Amino acid sequence: MFILDEKLKADSFDAGNLRYCKLLLAKNSCYPWFILVPQKPNLVEFTDLSFEDQINILKEINFVANFLQKKFKCDKINIATLGNVVRQLHIHIIARFKNDPAFPKPIWGETHFKEYDESELKIFLDEVRLEIENYLKS
Amino acid sequence: MFILDEKLKADSFDAGNLRYCKLLLAKNSCYPWFILVPQKPNLVEFTDLSFEDQINILKEINFVANFLQKKFKCDKINIATLGNVVRQLHIHIIARFKNDPAFPKPIWGETHFKEYDESELKIFLDEVRLEIENYLKS
Repeated sequence: MFILDEKLKADSFDAGNLRYCKLLLAKNSCYPWFILVPQKPNLVEFTDLSFEDQINILKEINFVANFLQKKFKCDKINIATLGNVVRQLHIHIIARFKNDPAFPKPIWGETHFKEYDESELKIFLDEVRLEIENYLKS
Repeated sequence: MFILDEKLKADSFDAGNLRYCKLLLAKNSCYPWFILVPQKPNLVEFTDLSFEDQINILKEINFVANFLQKKFKCDKINIATLGNVVRQLHIHIIARFKNDPAFPKPIWGETHFKEYDESELKIFLDEVRLEIENYLKS
């Protein structure tokens, strides 16, 4: 049975479920930062996935990356699966801007942190959930 | 026409060509660190690729990750496409160890650097090229 890692859970908001992955929004509002977590137990490496499952995730990476590009007109999308701290397989998809606090450095391990404003968060998550709904219909 | 970015070229050794990507080995021997560069012009974002091309790259990511795992018995594989500094689309695939100089932090922007010993490099690149040869036959 799939159980979301405790640290991933603590550091994010649940944005909903895609076909294959759970979608999390990192709690740091400095960067529009999503995390895809394949909902299968005991996954650590990307190569632990079957090729078919990798392709399923690829579709969901594209969905999230396209959403970020469309909504934020960002300067760059960063996509990464690291897992040096949290071993449960997860994929970061982050919208980066030339004027964000870490650019051009990667955001992991950066100390910049800003909480989401509660009403801003609600609006954003509602928008994401609507996008997911439309994606799942397509 | 595809032309390899000058900075990627300066910071790496050419390890050969796969079906779709050029394979580079980063010059920093602190980490076994490969870079895949799709050999098509004007690619910046992963979403610039057609889904078919993404699947081609996925196969080559698996080839490199599996090789690193088999050869180094590493603790973690890091896979990432960032492009905040070099915009030409490229994908990092890095073998990480609990006792490497940056662990558990990502390696980008880290100051640890060690040149490859010339004879060690030759042996390693020969091995990689043999792996590529076998992969291309399969």
